[in-house]
Amino acid sequence: MSPGTVHCVGLGPGDPELMSVRADRLVRAARHVAFFRKAGRPGRARAIVEGMLRGDAVEYPMEYPVTTEIPLDDPRYNDLLSAFYAQCTAHLRALAEAGEDVVVLCEGDPFFYGSFMHLHARLRDHVPVRIVPAVTGMSAAWTATDMPVTWGDDVLTVLMGTLPEADLARGAAQADALVVMKVGRNLPKIARALAAAGKADRAWLVEYASMEGQSVVPLAEAGARVAPYFSIVVVHGQGRRP
Amino acid sequence: MSPGTVHCVGLGPGDPELMSVRADRLVRAARHVAFFRKAGRPGRARAIVEGMLRGDAVEYPMEYPVTTEIPLDDPRYNDLLSAFYAQCTAHLRALAEAGEDVVVLCEGDPFFYGSFMHLHARLRDHVPVRIVPAVTGMSAAWTATDMPVTWGDDVLTVLMGTLPEADLARGAAQADALVVMKVGRNLPKIARALAAAGKADRAWLVEYASMEGQSVVPLAEAGARVAPYFSIVVVHGQGRRP
Ligand SMILES: C[S@@+](CC[C@H](N)C(=O)[O-])C[C@H]1O[C@@H](n2cnc3c(N)ncnc32)[C@H](O)[C@@H]1O
Ligand SMILES: C[S@@+](CC[C@H](N)C(=O)[O-])C[C@H]1O[C@@H](n2cnc3c(N)ncnc32)[C@H](O)[C@@H]1O
Repeated sequence: MSPGTVHCVGLGPGDPELMSVRADRLVRAARHVAFFRKAGRPGRARAIVEGMLRGDAVEYPMEYPVTTEIPLDDPRYNDLLSAFYAQCTAHLRALAEAGEDVVVLCEGDPFFYGSFMHLHARLRDHVPVRIVPAVTGMSAAWTATDMPVTWGDDVLTVLMGTLPEADLARGAAQADALVVMKVGRNLPKIARALAAAGKADRAWLVEYASMEGQSVVPLAEAGARVAPYFSIVVVHGQGRRP
Repeated sequence: MSPGTVHCVGLGPGDPELMSVRADRLVRAARHVAFFRKAGRPGRARAIVEGMLRGDAVEYPMEYPVTTEIPLDDPRYNDLLSAFYAQCTAHLRALAEAGEDVVVLCEGDPFFYGSFMHLHARLRDHVPVRIVPAVTGMSAAWTATDMPVTWGDDVLTVLMGTLPEADLARGAAQADALVVMKVGRNLPKIARALAAAGKADRAWLVEYASMEGQSVVPLAEAGARVAPYFSIVVVHGQGRRP
């Protein structure tokens, strides 16, 4: 019997109309649908495709064992996640080896800071895996600001808000245009780093880009609060413009 | 009479199935369709939607007056481009003011190094303009390498191959993951800059990502030639992977 394929389908930033034609087609036809979620939550990827799945679709939610409860540098964090990914991999691999195709739903573009990469690394030598690229959250974020993010030869840098403040400040100082993801509770640290880099006054905080509740405010007006998980800070470049 | 809307529709990296559901819908319904192209060429954006336009669609090709013939720092370059953008703007604005919707076809994501931004800046105060974000060429490029571009807290930097060699080398040295666009005749310079940054041996050259003729080769094997316009160099990050 020939094995099925694990399709990792990027769903884009949240608005179902921003899914690609291919993603739309694969999702609607899928018999097996897997997706990550936090325990006790519906899961954003699953929410994006609400109403699109076949009536007989078999769903496989993959629930993260930890997220922010254990610090990243605690060895237990790695062990727990590693065991979790191994378990998800075994399930998807078994389905594919039984000849079934599986669609794994991924927020944004799968190969851009996506969780699926951890399954991909474990699956790719055993069963066919195909990736469908997608609109990133950052594309939706700068589109929401209604200003182009890069002009001419601008350098764009993408930083994770989880980085140490000094790294954020250094990265921000060296770039023309800037995107900071994983904002959440890192918002005050990010604001300080951008101020140190002289970019705070041009920064925007975009929450829920392309989703219900989308909001765009100057970072200076955001205040020192905890931003939602789906938040991005954008600083536009100022390059050549004929 | 209420004005029409100028929709700038990102088409994604080239494969028509990677267009968003919204882009697909807008393109198929459009009565007025505008797109950039080099004089004498069919135009890549127009090629992506071949077979999708209404039979009675009115097409408006916008032909660049210069591309590589005049150096970027020659003042005539700016003057020529500026007059060209003003002329395109006048046409699109007149259509919208006459109550017509217009779809402007854009490669990749419009607000990410796209030409439409120059029309957007000139149109936005006069008629309604809406942007549809899209899959970028770089997403298609790293997907084509079949490896995630960023892991954990990797810093991603996007550089234009048109930058001076020293700037490329500095930008490359500071990033974990790297994308270099506008490769073309800059390929040998980019290869030297990546070598100076100690990243040449991990770099891939991706030509025509998601298009017919897609090719992925290690940069070291690419040789000192002129790459096609649709080429991207990718260096993958090596961050945390549980
Ligand atoms: C683990 S990363 C996944 C990125 C995703 N693969 C992509 O292509 O955008 C999660 C981060 O992406 C950002 N993000 C993704 N989609 C977003 C959206 N629609 N609005 C705001 N932020 C978003 C947030 O910063 C969030 O912390
Ligand atoms: C003016 S920029 C436009 C970028 C576009 N707006 C995007 O979102 O990808 C043109 C550059 O994009 C890159 N590019 C865009 N699409 C590509 C593709 N499908 N394959 C390879 N390179 C591509 C090339 O480096 C090219 O020189």
